[in-house]
This record gives sequence, structure tokens and C-alpha cells, in this order.
Amino acid sequence: MFYPQTIQKLIECFKKIPGIGDKTAERYALAVLDLDEDVINQFAQSISDSKSKIKRCTKCNNYAEDDLCDICKDKKRDKNLLCVVEDPKSIVLFERIGSYNGYYHVINGLISPLEGINPEDINLDALIARIKKDKVKEVILAVKPSIEGETTSLYISKLLSNTDVIVSKIAHGVPLGTEIDYVDTLTLELALENRKKVTEDK
Amino acid sequence: MFYPQTIQKLIECFKKIPGIGDKTAERYALAVLDLDEDVINQFAQSISDSKSKIKRCTKCNNYAEDDLCDICKDKKRDKNLLCVVEDPKSIVLFERIGSYNGYYHVINGLISPLEGINPEDINLDALIARIKKDKVKEVILAVKPSIEGETTSLYISKLLSNTDVIVSKIAHGVPLGTEIDYVDTLTLELALENRKKVTEDK
Repeated sequence: MFYPQTIQKLIECFKKIPGIGDKTAERYALAVLDLDEDVINQFAQSISDSKSKIKRCTKCNNYAEDDLCDICKDKKRDKNLLCVVEDPKSIVLFERIGSYNGYYHVINGLISPLEGINPEDINLDALIARIKKDKVKEVILAVKPSIEGETTSLYISKLLSNTDVIVSKIAHGVPLGTEIDYVDTLTLELALENRKKVTEDK
Repeated sequence: MFYPQTIQKLIECFKKIPGIGDKTAERYALAVLDLDEDVINQFAQSISDSKSKIKRCTKCNNYAEDDLCDICKDKKRDKNLLCVVEDPKSIVLFERIGSYNGYYHVINGLISPLEGINPEDINLDALIARIKKDKVKEVILAVKPSIEGETTSLYISKLLSNTDVIVSKIAHGVPLGTEIDYVDTLTLELALENRKKVTEDK
């Protein structure tokens, strides 16, 4: 209550963003006061647009400004490949690699019986229907390697077991540039299991 | 460019705040998308208000929504005490203590010949004029203990040397709850110099 009401309100707004605490919110709000007027206007506009303009792609659930997202609109991609991800942010991670040329499908969550999230809650029906309709040849599961992720992957591959769609999963192992000492046991076990031959076949 | 333009713009806005990098800006922007509509509206409004409604108190330079800030408006405070601080944020730090009952004066910067900031740039004239006009009895210097802070403190006390205003400075020393090992040498030296007698006078 030591700041004028306008600043106090701004601090409260910053605090609504997960991960921003009292001190950080205060610092950000004071920093906003020092921004140029055009940045301020743009900032206020973008925040307000984020609710009114951003919707989900009707085909893949990615963020979109129209009915279809930019990726689903792109006809030049490989229709045979469909990468299944948990959230729209993952799409950006894969797009940054630059080499993947297929489409995506956001399932918006993972199966988690403990949290009461069942298969029907994450809308897998739409995924399966789309795979059949678009005649997808390979489904790449790219969800996080947690129990929920594994359960979801397993469930999707079961749903597709009576089709001739290839179901694959991104590789797990030791990340590049990491000291092997810092990698957890489970990852190391997976890395060992999924080892790749480096000598030529004899 | 992997996000729709609206999200991309929001990310760019967050990046204008000092200390927010690419990844954090992205995380905040996506978090904004998940906020409730009323929070979004409030957020956009607060940001836009921060430029239009917040000005500086004409008396002490604190943030204010009117000509005078809430503290300068408060007639119940001790007119004899004036605490000189570098920025409005410092006022909040002192107000949180709850026990200081005087007024403040924000000098908006410190003398720093290296950065080309001279005494006239931080508007000390207004401070001195105010001290004389309001018949302040004690000026408490509460700027940060850097070379710039010390220079500024020294300069202000010189300006007041031919008056009977008491000039004091907040104490520097070992902060409470700190391991003495982690305190820098200069602070420790100050703490030693400014030691306080704990035995009774004999």
C-alpha cells in the first residue's frame, strides 16, 4: 500500500503470472514506468489482444489467429508425418530445430489418473480421427518422459495398434554437452538400453 | 516467428523490461494467455495507466497520482525530519519499516563524475531550498553506500554546513542474520570503526 494505487494494481497483475513473486512484480512494475510511451501502448494492446485475438487452431490445437494455425495452413509440409505434443509451446521447440517438416497435434495435457485426467479429457478422439482422415503414415510421440507422458504414449500407440500407422517416440538419453555425472539414473539406464552401434556391422 | 504475431509482440514487450530475456519473456507471454479475462483487462489497463496517471510529486519527487504524493499530503508527519533517498523505491523500503515518521526527498540519481552526472543534474537546489523553507531540523542521508553515494552525501552535507541543520547518515555495518564470513572487507571495516559500546559506562 506504499505505492500509488495504479502502481499497486500493476504489481498485483504481474503477480498473477506464475513464478513472479512480490519483489519481482515490484521490480517489473517500476520498470514499466520507465518504458517509452509507444512501448507502453504496444504492451497494453498486446496483453489485451492476447485474449481477444488468440484462439486455438481447429485442426491441431496450436495457437492461431485464424481458424487454422500457420503450420496447418502450410500445404508444403509432409502430410505423412504427425508429431503429437503436449502443448503449443512444444511446437515452437520443434520448429526451432528447422528440420522437421510434418504437421503437429497438440493434445493439451497428459493422461494422469492420479490427478483425475482420463484419456477422454485430453481429446484423443480428435487425434485418432485426424490420423485416419489425413492418412498419416507415422505418428511421432513427443511428450515429456514422465509417468504421465509414458502412459499417454502407450495409450495412443494402443489406440493405433490395429491400424498400419507407424508409431514412434523421440529418443531419450544423455543430452549433448552434459557431464555424464549430472544425468539421473533413469536417463542413464535408458541411454544404456537404447545404445547405438558405432562399429560397422560385420 | 514461430508464434502468431500477437504472441510474438507480447514477447517483445516483456523483453523491454530490464532483466527479462528471451526464454522468460516467452514464458510470461504464454502465461498471460492463460489468465482470466478480467485479469487481462486489468493488466492492460494498469500498464496503460502507468504512463498516463503516474507522475512525480511536485514537492519530493515520489511517485504520485496527484500533484502531491500521499506522504507529502500527510500533515501528521514530523516536519523536522527529511530523509534523502535516491529513488522512489527507497521510500517504500523505509515506509515498510513502519517506524519512520518524517518526510522524504527523492534526488533521482547520485553524483557520478565518471558518468558525467554533476550536482546540478540531480536537482539538489530544490532539496536545499526545501530544507530551508520547511525549516527541517535533521536531514537523514539514505543513499547507497557506493562511491557515488558517498560523494553525494558529502556534497549535500557541505551545502548545509553553514546552516544549523543536523545532517546524519544511515548506519552501515554487518546486516542481521548474516554469517560474518560473507560480509565484504569494506563493510567489516566500517562495522569495526563504528562499533558500539555494550558495557555500561564506568
